[in-house]
Amino acid sequence: MDTVSCWEPSGNLVESYLRRCPARDVLTVLADKWVPLVLGTLRNEGGPIRFNELRRRLDGITQKMLTRTLRNLERDGLVRRTVYPTVPPRVEYELTGLGADLGVITHAMGQWALRHADEIGAARIEFDERAARDPEPVRL
Amino acid sequence: MDTVSCWEPSGNLVESYLRRCPARDVLTVLADKWVPLVLGTLRNEGGPIRFNELRRRLDGITQKMLTRTLRNLERDGLVRRTVYPTVPPRVEYELTGLGADLGVITHAMGQWALRHADEIGAARIEFDERAARDPEPVRL
Repeated sequence: MDTVSCWEPSGNLVESYLRRCPARDVLTVLADKWVPLVLGTLRNEGGPIRFNELRRRLDGITQKMLTRTLRNLERDGLVRRTVYPTVPPRVEYELTGLGADLGVITHAMGQWALRHADEIGAARIEFDERAARDPEPVRL
Repeated sequence: MDTVSCWEPSGNLVESYLRRCPARDVLTVLADKWVPLVLGTLRNEGGPIRFNELRRRLDGITQKMLTRTLRNLERDGLVRRTVYPTVPPRVEYELTGLGADLGVITHAMGQWALRHADEIGAARIEFDERAARDPEPVRL
């Protein structure tokens, strides 16, 4: 079997028998701004929560986007979905152990974001002003 | 001025005078699977690195995507870009203090991804098999 070079998040190239790097693949889980917000809300709830209540707390998320985010999180084993056979069916979501574990990291991301929001906002304004003054035709 | 409810990553709703939540806005920075990989490579390098060398290490990234990711990171004050007036110009990238700080968190994300890649892969297979057996017409 051919080995491929697989870039690890530590910055090391490793030889891998996998065609794809599993860690890279998992990083795509986090490549969604709603993931830390959904995990944070479930983490804060500390138990099962219904879809509509979750949506209400995530002020601004569409039903479609919340459905998609929850489906991806369930597929990855981070969220447990329980359907109760009532009429209409009651559907509840809660974190799995793995989801709670990732929630610790996404919470740190969120805290970092809160702490540095002003600094990042100022950097953006400065960058945009500079780019407007001195546009670069080609950029590497 | 009207206040809006602004959802914090801690899971608390806060009243905000901002139309947008700054922390949410910053979370979009991380909503790109290349961000942890680029920050990790710059972090591992520990100093300035040229564009093409960075691209070589990030096996699989296109020139366009790396250019875009670096531009966003520079705009957010996470990466410093230096152009030397040689022919052709030499362009180097390195982390700022803020970027190095975020790099600690994205490194933790990467380590988590490596540690749990198998578990997540298994959960996906199980989910997909279940979904194939028992498709749901409507999903909440």
